[in-house]
Amino acid sequence: MSAKVVTRAAVAAPPGVSADTVNDAINTVRFLAIDAINKSNSGHPGLPMGCAPMGYVIFREAMTHNPKNTKWFNRDRFVLSAGHGCMLQYSLMHLTGYPSVSIEDIKQFRQWDSKTPGHPENFITDGIEVTTGPLGMGICNAVGLAMVEKHLAGRFNKPDCEIVDHYTYCVMGDGCNMEGMSGEGASLAGHWGLGKLIVFYDDNHISIDGHTDISFTEDVVARFNAYGWHTQHVENGNTDVDSIRAAVNAAKADPRPSLIKVTTLIGYGSPNKSNTHDVHGAPLGKDETAATRENLKWKYGEFEVPEAVKAYMDCSEKGTAAEAEWNAKWATYKSKYAEDAAELESIMSGKLPSGWEKSLPTFTPEDKGVATRIHSQTMLNALGGAIPGFMGGSADLAPSNMTLMKQFGDFQKDTPAERNVRFGVREHGMGAIANGMKLHSPGIIPYCATFFIFTDYMRCAMRIAALSQAGTIFVMTHDSIGVGEDGPTHQPIEHVASFRAMPGMDMARPADGNETAAMYKMAVENSMNGAPTTLALSRQVVPNLAGTSMEGAAKGAYVVQGAAAGEACDVILIGTGTELELACQAGAELESKGKKVRVVSMPCWEAFERQPAAYQESVLPAAMRAKTVSIEAGTTFGWAKYAGASIGHDDFGASAPAPILYKQFGITADAMAAKAMSL
Amino acid sequence: MSAKVVTRAAVAAPPGVSADTVNDAINTVRFLAIDAINKSNSGHPGLPMGCAPMGYVIFREAMTHNPKNTKWFNRDRFVLSAGHGCMLQYSLMHLTGYPSVSIEDIKQFRQWDSKTPGHPENFITDGIEVTTGPLGMGICNAVGLAMVEKHLAGRFNKPDCEIVDHYTYCVMGDGCNMEGMSGEGASLAGHWGLGKLIVFYDDNHISIDGHTDISFTEDVVARFNAYGWHTQHVENGNTDVDSIRAAVNAAKADPRPSLIKVTTLIGYGSPNKSNTHDVHGAPLGKDETAATRENLKWKYGEFEVPEAVKAYMDCSEKGTAAEAEWNAKWATYKSKYAEDAAELESIMSGKLPSGWEKSLPTFTPEDKGVATRIHSQTMLNALGGAIPGFMGGSADLAPSNMTLMKQFGDFQKDTPAERNVRFGVREHGMGAIANGMKLHSPGIIPYCATFFIFTDYMRCAMRIAALSQAGTIFVMTHDSIGVGEDGPTHQPIEHVASFRAMPGMDMARPADGNETAAMYKMAVENSMNGAPTTLALSRQVVPNLAGTSMEGAAKGAYVVQGAAAGEACDVILIGTGTELELACQAGAELESKGKKVRVVSMPCWEAFERQPAAYQESVLPAAMRAKTVSIEAGTTFGWAKYAGASIGHDDFGASAPAPILYKQFGITADAMAAKAMSL
Repeated sequence: MSAKVVTRAAVAAPPGVSADTVNDAINTVRFLAIDAINKSNSGHPGLPMGCAPMGYVIFREAMTHNPKNTKWFNRDRFVLSAGHGCMLQYSLMHLTGYPSVSIEDIKQFRQWDSKTPGHPENFITDGIEVTTGPLGMGICNAVGLAMVEKHLAGRFNKPDCEIVDHYTYCVMGDGCNMEGMSGEGASLAGHWGLGKLIVFYDDNHISIDGHTDISFTEDVVARFNAYGWHTQHVENGNTDVDSIRAAVNAAKADPRPSLIKVTTLIGYGSPNKSNTHDVHGAPLGKDETAATRENLKWKYGEFEVPEAVKAYMDCSEKGTAAEAEWNAKWATYKSKYAEDAAELESIMSGKLPSGWEKSLPTFTPEDKGVATRIHSQTMLNALGGAIPGFMGGSADLAPSNMTLMKQFGDFQKDTPAERNVRFGVREHGMGAIANGMKLHSPGIIPYCATFFIFTDYMRCAMRIAALSQAGTIFVMTHDSIGVGEDGPTHQPIEHVASFRAMPGMDMARPADGNETAAMYKMAVENSMNGAPTTLALSRQVVPNLAGTSMEGAAKGAYVVQGAAAGEACDVILIGTGTELELACQAGAELESKGKKVRVVSMPCWEAFERQPAAYQESVLPAAMRAKTVSIEAGTTFGWAKYAGASIGHDDFGASAPAPILYKQFGITADAMAAKAMSL
Repeated sequence: MSAKVVTRAAVAAPPGVSADTVNDAINTVRFLAIDAINKSNSGHPGLPMGCAPMGYVIFREAMTHNPKNTKWFNRDRFVLSAGHGCMLQYSLMHLTGYPSVSIEDIKQFRQWDSKTPGHPENFITDGIEVTTGPLGMGICNAVGLAMVEKHLAGRFNKPDCEIVDHYTYCVMGDGCNMEGMSGEGASLAGHWGLGKLIVFYDDNHISIDGHTDISFTEDVVARFNAYGWHTQHVENGNTDVDSIRAAVNAAKADPRPSLIKVTTLIGYGSPNKSNTHDVHGAPLGKDETAATRENLKWKYGEFEVPEAVKAYMDCSEKGTAAEAEWNAKWATYKSKYAEDAAELESIMSGKLPSGWEKSLPTFTPEDKGVATRIHSQTMLNALGGAIPGFMGGSADLAPSNMTLMKQFGDFQKDTPAERNVRFGVREHGMGAIANGMKLHSPGIIPYCATFFIFTDYMRCAMRIAALSQAGTIFVMTHDSIGVGEDGPTHQPIEHVASFRAMPGMDMARPADGNETAAMYKMAVENSMNGAPTTLALSRQVVPNLAGTSMEGAAKGAYVVQGAAAGEACDVILIGTGTELELACQAGAELESKGKKVRVVSMPCWEAFERQPAAYQESVLPAAMRAKTVSIEAGTTFGWAKYAGASIGHDDFGASAPAPILYKQFGITADAMAAKAMSL
């Protein structure tokens, strides 16, 4: 790794620029933040004012990026983990030449439909890499970005052609460091030896409750040392730009991930509010802005960018040249290493190899029944072979989640080209790292896995995947009371419902092999369209049912037995996942009593709700609602939308063999048939 | 703190006991685990086999506990954070004399309705302090238990009478240490100086994916040093009982929380499976059990406890004597410090001072409208004055959550008697610590707070509160798109629905002052009945409405305007929280058009669903479902149960001033009136 470092220019004060211009550039960042937040009367000036010097060094001196092509594959990545300080990033993007953040955009900070929302949102502002705000999330995203860089470099670089070669920069604050998830990400970054991850820790001693002394007295640097990081301390981050430069140089020269603790004054420059909580999350206001202006000897107007600063800060030319140089390298690479280049191109572009979906097998009732987690393993292995950017792993449950791709080894410090990822017992970090992986390159399709119950540890990362259009695939096994003996701490009840309620998330619960294949096909397509998918998979064995199909399942709900769609019937039975079998049995029982029955499998509500209204009405007619019964081994919450009566379990599970739990909780075909008869 | 340590006997091999008996006791623990797991054909033998020596020292030598009175206030607490190893705890409880775990109970391990479920469950097995299994949770519970001990000791102990004086022991594994939440708890324990917290780290190098080398290579001891802990290492935890004893002595002598890293072999004694993942989570089986028996020279039968071990391990006499000694001290305390004793008695017994609920104010429309988070602050301050065990705080959002009790200072290392808790930005740790606090003593009523969106960081702790009957109060402000400019990362959408779906959790969303008072009254009552409550509170101002009342709100849903319960009407409008005002406006608009309208406030579904069926039917008649419209600034998911149409927002929010968001998303009184007219 250290050899790579010297191929890039070391960070230094650019020749020919005066200290005054640098100083003015830094103060421009400060005052753009102050002015924007004053204008919107909402926002967080403290961080931009304190972090302007490190921000300046990162964006103007350290980073290789092309503001005119935010999608350039080999750009350095930047993540503002302390997302509330987003005016730092908007100011820097504006000054370095990103068309997405004009001065007019900055004047619209935090307003409806603006390009400058209250936290950095990658789906709103071109050039923002990931969506941050929830603390600790961004540093884990940065670990994911740096991890993919290391993976692709290990997989594709040639001794004569280092086609993948960029840094990932991150700024985190005290809040990020208090969050446990940041420790999860940092531990993995140290374990993986992500030497091109450079994290600035804005050590300003102030959080919302006041001085960090009241809740945060641990030794952060010692903790990062314990994770195997290279650590440094810049003692005066307010003005000592040279030390920040030197720290970046040292960080690049060390093979470990780097933490640069930079001690700053929050709200630096404000004579009455700096170093207080007052400047964290509220506008400076007119009087204090005037005082700050005087204190920093700032002679320019509101939203004014000095001409010298404008000229000096623009990185468009430098960035375009860097990209052109890389493009030439890429041309060479393609000509010399065509096969690798095709794979890498797929990852860079997100264009999947044609026919990838044909790798997914289908099943008939003659095929041996297995748990859907076993079907899931089949699909993961198939997709790993068919799609170059397909990679992922489990939070220390690979043999239970069945997530190993047998053709690959483990992604590790010394084997970065491999594609099985060992996340350890770190669910929240895993989810956020996977989101960062996805947002590195369109063709990366990351999956991550744990027991479904432990989505409770990683829910924010899953929600941010949905919000930020990160198409991560969440592989969640042991999806109900079917877990059995491990008991109620390990048995999901409300989880399927809770993800159906989450915007932007497809919640899939397949019933057998065909449906598992269909849901994986959907999950990959979703990933390419910028949407995550959560798969709920069984611990227990299920048969391959006669009526299931990939085509049907893809519609989210479809008829698997009895009265066809649009046909009149007496009763409709809906089942999902492991309970579809019970619905089919109940349907047969009712048929034997002379009822005309439709059995509907509903592996994905969201997919069904995307179908044309006529299809939806043909499968689940509104007029039949009162004669529709659902069955699902979990809460009945939400089912009133589709069913007049529901078989489920609205309390916690228990520790006992799974078949006993199903019987004790009344989740049986007989109960369903009886309920249907009673309607 | 260190002075207190010497008031307890140092841990040493009890005089007069042979090394053979100690060794047999340890092997009894191992074989009870082996046999129970073989019999149930399910479970985790590896940890009990490796941790039997430390378990022996903790339960037989170190702990002061009375198996015959598991509720003795001053008992030492024990938490098995690595809950999957619960056969360790069941075996030790059985041997030390807990009536709740008979040998028959052990034979029913993991069976329906048994006292020995697959993970430790405090609500099933008398003597289990907290419910563990989800990794990292238990160590944070232990921090909560130790924190309450320090608080009560600081508040009630007298120089001549140390009435609160116990240790909290915990066993955690590699998995617990990988979880970020354990770092959150450990950081706070160090910050608070919880010197009577002694944590054993079972360092066995094996997790489910295999050797910890593949994902966990950080220096755990150095990390705990960074948190301000006292750390030790016992290098041979399999047989070196003396070193474990010495470590406990040193831990007690140090004023910091202690981590004792004990290196063990997972499955120690099993010749073919120890030190492998195979012994982590699967029965040893017949052959390997025989081999283990031979290897450890174990001459006793299945489930057999040697007589000498039985006699030696029983702590009933010792425990009863210890309790009697404490009872005498308590009698002295009561006579000398009657006022303090009354407060402490309330905390110990859970019997609240009579009339506590009268501290909660009521409101009329003439009272100035404020945000419900401000009403919440009023209630917290009132309850803090009225209830001795009422205490809590926020995850670094006290000035936003409005959670400071003005009459108290901060609970800190040197001011432990105070009752405002500063959790820092550590939501998951906070929730689990609060649960531990609650389960320390019946009269402790802990609250903890953050933005409602960040329940996504702490959902498992909230669920475990519900499961384990820990009556924690979760104070969640900024409960909708009403957050405004901070944008979609900070705006809850699906959260109210997701907690309505959670078993055992009351989800409360009050509309104004009266309803906030009612929901706090309910939350305190819930807490005494072993149930948590989540309060969703507004950032924005709401008026005090004419029709609201504490009595009505307590029923979960009630009529606030228009047609009375039971009366015929044309349309029913349901509102919750900040949208009740809109429902009232829509109701007035419809009345002006000649419609007969009932406006129902529904601050808590669960409370409503506990009312008699006749009441429910009188407020929300089933036959009126199609003519019922709900309004809530969040997902409409779930509302089909009560409403034929719903006003809400099923997508993410956005960054803009809140009133603009309400208008853009169509959450308005006009929209509600129009929807009602269309039905």
